[in-house]
Amino acid sequence: MNRKPKIAVVLSGCGVNDGAEIHEAVLTLLAIDRQGGQYQCFAPDMAQRDVIDHATGKSMAESRNVMVEAARIARGQIRDLAEFNPAEFDALVFPGGFGAAKTLTSFAVDGADCQVEPSVEKAVHGMHDMGKPIGALCIAPAILARVLGSVELTIGDDAGTASAIEEMGAKHRNAGHGEVVVDRAQRVATTPCYMLESTISQIADGAGNLVKAILDMVREESKAA
Amino acid sequence: MNRKPKIAVVLSGCGVNDGAEIHEAVLTLLAIDRQGGQYQCFAPDMAQRDVIDHATGKSMAESRNVMVEAARIARGQIRDLAEFNPAEFDALVFPGGFGAAKTLTSFAVDGADCQVEPSVEKAVHGMHDMGKPIGALCIAPAILARVLGSVELTIGDDAGTASAIEEMGAKHRNAGHGEVVVDRAQRVATTPCYMLESTISQIADGAGNLVKAILDMVREESKAA
Repeated sequence: MNRKPKIAVVLSGCGVNDGAEIHEAVLTLLAIDRQGGQYQCFAPDMAQRDVIDHATGKSMAESRNVMVEAARIARGQIRDLAEFNPAEFDALVFPGGFGAAKTLTSFAVDGADCQVEPSVEKAVHGMHDMGKPIGALCIAPAILARVLGSVELTIGDDAGTASAIEEMGAKHRNAGHGEVVVDRAQRVATTPCYMLESTISQIADGAGNLVKAILDMVREESKAA
Repeated sequence: MNRKPKIAVVLSGCGVNDGAEIHEAVLTLLAIDRQGGQYQCFAPDMAQRDVIDHATGKSMAESRNVMVEAARIARGQIRDLAEFNPAEFDALVFPGGFGAAKTLTSFAVDGADCQVEPSVEKAVHGMHDMGKPIGALCIAPAILARVLGSVELTIGDDAGTASAIEEMGAKHRNAGHGEVVVDRAQRVATTPCYMLESTISQIADGAGNLVKAILDMVREESKAA
C-alpha cells in the first residue's frame, strides 16, 4: 500500500493495576510509528472497575473513567471505542494491563466465564469479519480467546491463565520474552510482555515484534488485493 | 565502571497536562535500560497543583497525589523524593510534562519568579555539588535554570519560554528534534522533546540522545576517578 497502514490501539485506562499497562501502550505506539504505520487510540467511555493506588497496591475510594484516563497515554488524542469503524483501520491492537481483564472484559473476576465489554466485542468481530489482523499483548489475548474462541495464542507461560484461555476454546502456546505467536488463519498475533517478569527493553522487543507481525499481515493482504 | 550506572528519574505525576509526560518518561526509562544503566523513579509525596481531564483539557474537581500517580509509570517502584540521597546515584534526570512546571516548580504560573519544590531543589543541588550529571527534557530545564542559574540549556525554540529561562540567569540555545545541549562545565544535558511538535519516534530519539550524553559524562567521570 502507498499510504501508511492505520492501526487502532485500544487502551483500558492508564496504569497496570487498574488500566492499560503504560510501558506496553507507549512502546506499541512507538513501534507503530517507527515501522511506518500510524495509530489512533480508542477506549470505552465507561467507569473503571476500580482505582488502585499504584504506590501501595491498595484500592482507592475513587471513580475514574476509562477513556479519560487513557487520554493521558494518548496525549488527548483519544476516541470512544463505541464509535470504532473497522472500515477505517487496517489492524487493531490491545496492549495489556489489568484494565484488559477488569473493564474490557471481566476475566480478572470471572475467568473463563468472563463477559466482554460490548464495544470491545463489536470491534473485534468487525475487524475479524473483514479478515483484518488483531494483536494483543500480555493478558489482553484473553479478550480474543473469549470473543473468537478457536484461535492460537499466548499469554506467556502461566499454567493457570493458560488453562482458563483453553477453557474458552483457544489453543495456548507458551512463549518467552519478545516472542510472538501468530495464528495466520485467524490473523491474530499475541506476545507475553509483562505476563513474564520483564525489563522495559524486553517489553519494547515484544511490542516491536508484535507490531511487525501485524504490519506484515496488513502488507500481505494489500499485495494480494 | 564495572557496575551499571544508577540513574534517578524524577516524575511529577502521570500525564502531560498535570504531571509527567508519559512518552518522555517511559522512553527515558527505556533508553537507560537499553544503554546499560539502571533506573529508580522518584516523585515528591504531595498534592498535584490540579487534575486535568486529558480527553477535554478541562480542570477536574479532584485531588491527586504526585507520587501515587507517578507510581503508575513506575509500576509501583517509586520512592519519595524527600528521601533522595545523591551518594546513591550517578545521575539525575527530569522528564517533562506540565507537572515539572506546576508541582516540581511553579514556572507555569510564576514564570521566571517561580518557586521550586524543596525536595527538588535539594536533589539538584546535591547532585550538582558532587559534580554528577543532571538531564532534563521538554520544559523540565526550567527547574535547572531556577536552581542553578548560570547554565546553558534548551527548551526548544519557543521565544517566550527561552526569554523566561534567560531571566533566571541561564543561557538558552535553540535546539531541534532529538538534539541535546550539553553544558560540560555544569554537567547538564537538555533536549526539547514535546516542547516541539513531535512524533513519538522523535521523543524516543531525544530521550535516547539525552541518556547517552548523561551516561557519557558518568563514564568519563568514572575513568577520571
